[in-house]
Amino acid sequence: MYPVITISREFGSGGHSIGEKVAKELNIPFYDGEIVNRVAIESGYAKELIEEQGEHTNVSDKWFSISSASTMYFQSPQDEIFLAQRNVILDCAAKGPCVIVGRCSDYILKNEDIPAIHVLIHADMPHRIKRVSERYGEIEDISVKKRIQKKDKQRRTYYRYYTDQHWGDYENYDLALDSGTLGENICVACICETVKHYAMEQEGK
Amino acid sequence: MYPVITISREFGSGGHSIGEKVAKELNIPFYDGEIVNRVAIESGYAKELIEEQGEHTNVSDKWFSISSASTMYFQSPQDEIFLAQRNVILDCAAKGPCVIVGRCSDYILKNEDIPAIHVLIHADMPHRIKRVSERYGEIEDISVKKRIQKKDKQRRTYYRYYTDQHWGDYENYDLALDSGTLGENICVACICETVKHYAMEQEGK
Repeated sequence: MYPVITISREFGSGGHSIGEKVAKELNIPFYDGEIVNRVAIESGYAKELIEEQGEHTNVSDKWFSISSASTMYFQSPQDEIFLAQRNVILDCAAKGPCVIVGRCSDYILKNEDIPAIHVLIHADMPHRIKRVSERYGEIEDISVKKRIQKKDKQRRTYYRYYTDQHWGDYENYDLALDSGTLGENICVACICETVKHYAMEQEGK
Repeated sequence: MYPVITISREFGSGGHSIGEKVAKELNIPFYDGEIVNRVAIESGYAKELIEEQGEHTNVSDKWFSISSASTMYFQSPQDEIFLAQRNVILDCAAKGPCVIVGRCSDYILKNEDIPAIHVLIHADMPHRIKRVSERYGEIEDISVKKRIQKKDKQRRTYYRYYTDQHWGDYENYDLALDSGTLGENICVACICETVKHYAMEQEGK
């Protein structure tokens, strides 16, 4: 049986698209938007808010200030979203092999008794600028670069706050791939091959 | 045609053995010991010295002090070994597809016009202690751990000094693999698959 595959990604590296293709190739569920829907039901917060706050932290945000100051007796809305998201991710993973994108899913599944492979997709700035510009139609490289840097910072801060780990430390991933140099298709092939071999070894045990 | 494959590795992660198997599977040359032999001929230094100084730096070492203080008019023996090693690595890579282990080969080939895939092999401490103990027959976990930490530190310092990059930054590698969680065979399969797809894409261009 295939393991659960978590995909952490730098903004603009194509990690979402790679995850989607891996899920399709392996014929297993792909969770990204669905997690948002289910967290909305579980937490009662609006989908737009979960999308915004579910893996990003703006340090100047009043919610983050509330989170930072929170005690065991008090949970900020961001904490509540994190916990609801954690439950949904654990539930998805417990159902069987799947691909889960972002949302600290690598950390959440790390010590669970669920076979999992944790993947990081990264790329250098020129490749990411090109990809983001193509996708969102922005023209100026400088503004795209600023947007990428801001998103990265928000994700890093969020990850750091909720996992106490540094986002992007290679020790946290079984597999880290440069989608800029390798390209999306090679990343997909590489992940699928690793997962297939992993499943074969697990079955042989 | 396959690209050149450089393998950087944490001490005890099995990177050398993985590189050897990848070379065998792809039927291309594997360079590790041979580099030492050729550097010995080119530089005039003894093989034992090159093995010791060719990718490790002991910060308390008088040679490192000399290197650090060296100017453009003076090269320390360690600088000379680095330059001879650089020439040998470039020469090996220019001859065609091959696997080269360590010695800042990723950095040396980075801006060359030679198709290359840069791999990092890492593993957590318990896996590395187990591997080193099995290989070198040491019994006490604590002394093995100290040995691993020392080797890592020496390699990091050397890499940092000659490349001005941080050893282990994921941005420096196309592919980073955890040999502890994945196991040696899956790492070999994953690298070979990536390389084969890379070669197919290059040929299709």
